[in-house]
Amino acid sequence: MRVLGIDPGLTRCGLGVVEGSVGRPLSLVGVGVVRTPADAPLAQRLVAIEQGIEAWLDEHRPDAVAVERVFSQHNVRTVMGTAQASGIALVAAARRGLPVALHTPSEVKAAVSGSGRADKAQVGAMVTRLLRLTETPKPADAADALALAICHIWRGGAQSRIDAALAAAGTGRTRP
Amino acid sequence: MRVLGIDPGLTRCGLGVVEGSVGRPLSLVGVGVVRTPADAPLAQRLVAIEQGIEAWLDEHRPDAVAVERVFSQHNVRTVMGTAQASGIALVAAARRGLPVALHTPSEVKAAVSGSGRADKAQVGAMVTRLLRLTETPKPADAADALALAICHIWRGGAQSRIDAALAAAGTGRTRP
Repeated sequence: MRVLGIDPGLTRCGLGVVEGSVGRPLSLVGVGVVRTPADAPLAQRLVAIEQGIEAWLDEHRPDAVAVERVFSQHNVRTVMGTAQASGIALVAAARRGLPVALHTPSEVKAAVSGSGRADKAQVGAMVTRLLRLTETPKPADAADALALAICHIWRGGAQSRIDAALAAAGTGRTRP
Repeated sequence: MRVLGIDPGLTRCGLGVVEGSVGRPLSLVGVGVVRTPADAPLAQRLVAIEQGIEAWLDEHRPDAVAVERVFSQHNVRTVMGTAQASGIALVAAARRGLPVALHTPSEVKAAVSGSGRADKAQVGAMVTRLLRLTETPKPADAADALALAICHIWRGGAQSRIDAALAAAGTGRTRP
């Protein structure tokens, strides 16, 4: 399965596409970042993020999308923008009928490193190793997006197929 | 000028269209609420909100859109959903090239009632009076959306035209 991981953010929105399945080698399909200028109007920044995500969906045709779940624990201004960007990501995927899953930062860290408390460097190192890259993707948002995609393949793939089936059956009993 | 006010929310997203200009009577064009079921997947709820807003933009063709600025001061779970819904609203408007403005709850209350600390009932009463309605629009989200539109006509109309001109000139020196 091919998964687009999205690490939402207003200034830098990380995007990473990974192909693979449980128990088989993973491969990097694409990785990058959509950047928007801090001095642009908020609505324009969100439109630019939407256009960037749409372009990645068009180009890479993922089977599923994994988005980092946002928590309101840090800087309030940053968190609002991150939440808005994550909403754009969720809608872009769901509009196309793609299964979408949210994974918490701890879930992602645990999936790729074995520890929910791994730091950025550890996550970057594991992404590099798991995808057999010669260097760690930069910036960290790009590496995080790949980690999200890997987490989804290993952890969420089966669940998202169940969710999609349930959604299609109209039960609505899917994870938010 | 015709303004669509949007009070963003996942469970209830208030929508209100008001026509008028500074110093002239205001008139109600339309008011309503997009509701999404709490047990539906988050991405589906956001898509439903987007579809609802798009339908209102199609039907009422506003000259500008005013969205309530979200703060992370209350319940964290609610605020994340509200921020995501506000991102959807901002993008829906900006994608069409419509000027979009954000107004804080205090600005809206002050605009319609003279006090930034007015309660829901006061705001509802003033909206009813200013639009010469026979009863207060329900639920409160619908009345709030109308108050946002009125606030924008009285307070933000000139600013948003300046912003649009600046944005067109590519200076980027506009309010977020």
